[in-house]
Amino acid sequence: MSVWVPYRLEGVLAPLATRDDILVWDGKTEPTHDPGDVRFYVQPYTFDRNTVEIIAEMPNLEVVQTLTAGVDHIAPAVPDGVILANARGLHDASTSELALGLILASQRNIDGYVRDQDQGTWNFSKHPSLADRRVTIVGYGSIGRAIHRRLEPFEVEVTAVASRPREGVRGVDEILEILPSSEIVVLVVPHTGETERMVDTRFLAAMPDDSLLVNVARGVIVDTAALLAEGGRIRAALDVTDPEPLPRDHPLWSRPGTIITPHVGGNTNAFLPRALRLIGDQVTRWMKGEPIDNIVPRAG
Amino acid sequence: MSVWVPYRLEGVLAPLATRDDILVWDGKTEPTHDPGDVRFYVQPYTFDRNTVEIIAEMPNLEVVQTLTAGVDHIAPAVPDGVILANARGLHDASTSELALGLILASQRNIDGYVRDQDQGTWNFSKHPSLADRRVTIVGYGSIGRAIHRRLEPFEVEVTAVASRPREGVRGVDEILEILPSSEIVVLVVPHTGETERMVDTRFLAAMPDDSLLVNVARGVIVDTAALLAEGGRIRAALDVTDPEPLPRDHPLWSRPGTIITPHVGGNTNAFLPRALRLIGDQVTRWMKGEPIDNIVPRAG
Repeated sequence: MSVWVPYRLEGVLAPLATRDDILVWDGKTEPTHDPGDVRFYVQPYTFDRNTVEIIAEMPNLEVVQTLTAGVDHIAPAVPDGVILANARGLHDASTSELALGLILASQRNIDGYVRDQDQGTWNFSKHPSLADRRVTIVGYGSIGRAIHRRLEPFEVEVTAVASRPREGVRGVDEILEILPSSEIVVLVVPHTGETERMVDTRFLAAMPDDSLLVNVARGVIVDTAALLAEGGRIRAALDVTDPEPLPRDHPLWSRPGTIITPHVGGNTNAFLPRALRLIGDQVTRWMKGEPIDNIVPRAG
Repeated sequence: MSVWVPYRLEGVLAPLATRDDILVWDGKTEPTHDPGDVRFYVQPYTFDRNTVEIIAEMPNLEVVQTLTAGVDHIAPAVPDGVILANARGLHDASTSELALGLILASQRNIDGYVRDQDQGTWNFSKHPSLADRRVTIVGYGSIGRAIHRRLEPFEVEVTAVASRPREGVRGVDEILEILPSSEIVVLVVPHTGETERMVDTRFLAAMPDDSLLVNVARGVIVDTAALLAEGGRIRAALDVTDPEPLPRDHPLWSRPGTIITPHVGGNTNAFLPRALRLIGDQVTRWMKGEPIDNIVPRAG
């Protein structure tokens, strides 16, 4: 019976290296060990389907640990009775700082200046500050709160929105009343039946002229056709798109006032040290018979 | 005897509108009033030389109030005995958020993704986070501290450097020892004889490979030739350049790993409400015979 981890057992994982039942599979090559022996599977962070499909070859599986916060890509492949644990918190720093980077780049026209730079054009021009803006964060889990913490020193007014209202957080059923006074809207909801295409024609129409929509959640949260139909009335900064990857000839690439990054919210060197800590903690807990963290509730 | 202000007397300036000795000159047209009558001159925020040169036509001048933090562009034109007051604090929000925007854009390759976007290329790639980085702020006045406050939630390690060491701030005479462990260096020093070209070949050579130099101070703080000679070994994000504006054929435009914005640190809609408050406060104090704020010590 074995544990599969995607990284060599160095650094914080070194204490596990003495065990011969902890094996490395990075998801990029054919496995050199028998998947039939796997009881604890840490899915490699490659976004390749083979890292999901291999679960069907693991009849003795007890735990699947993802390195993503969202599990919509893998949950259908995890059999009933197998524990599914996500990487809640792992991407907070990297994803929340990209959200701030996208907000600041769009507000301060950094994308426009990059294009001016390629023409050798010094184009002194005035753009909206982040300071004084009203920012609405839609989705107030771990990453949403990390974005809020990073926004706090910027002299902004933040409204937090989540599926259910609570102290300091408004319910998403009020969103159409909140949007008309939101100059920046950041999407960081999980992908569920309720959130898929929640940013539709009505949602976008409720946003004021020249406001900014930032998506660091999942591409399908936004109805791409509705966003294209809005023309350039509102700006957009998207780390995720629908479809994804975006085909070369897709009209979203050239939508006015739009910045697109290729789903790199979590893809930085902040990832590995945090991923190794998470894997080390979870595998150690499981081997000691202790409850692991971040268990995703399963329907059915 | 008159007060010249660059904006119409609305909003917070409305209480001054009852006085017929407060006149508006925006610096963009010929003055319609006699400069010989001016006692309090608020320099328009246009960066045009005529707003400096007109001082020679103001024999009764008592106070020059700039809307810039730095006064090196105007100080030589202000006669002895005339009070010179700067706009300390006015640009903190706008300039410090641009510094954060430039840092995040360079770290997370937003400039590269803008160019990919224009080609319709989805180029998933890994770049350094801001999280975990060691950031050195060179210059720890009002804007330097505003940058520090904004950096704090980003899980970074900040070193503050100023001309003289004090509690929590290291002296600039230690800079060559601090740079080798600095992954991001932000310049926000005033332009003085000591700071002009302080970022020279030795300074740059002390920075580690792939580190980032951010200049939101003045172009002449950096020796442009030395920065060009470094090739792409270190990245740069420059809101100010030497020369400025940068001519179309200047090699800095195409230096690898470089983002250039056209001196727009203060040029946002955060400016006007803060400028009006400053002008209203300073003119009101002066008319009441009270001491004004932000007086710049004059040599001689």
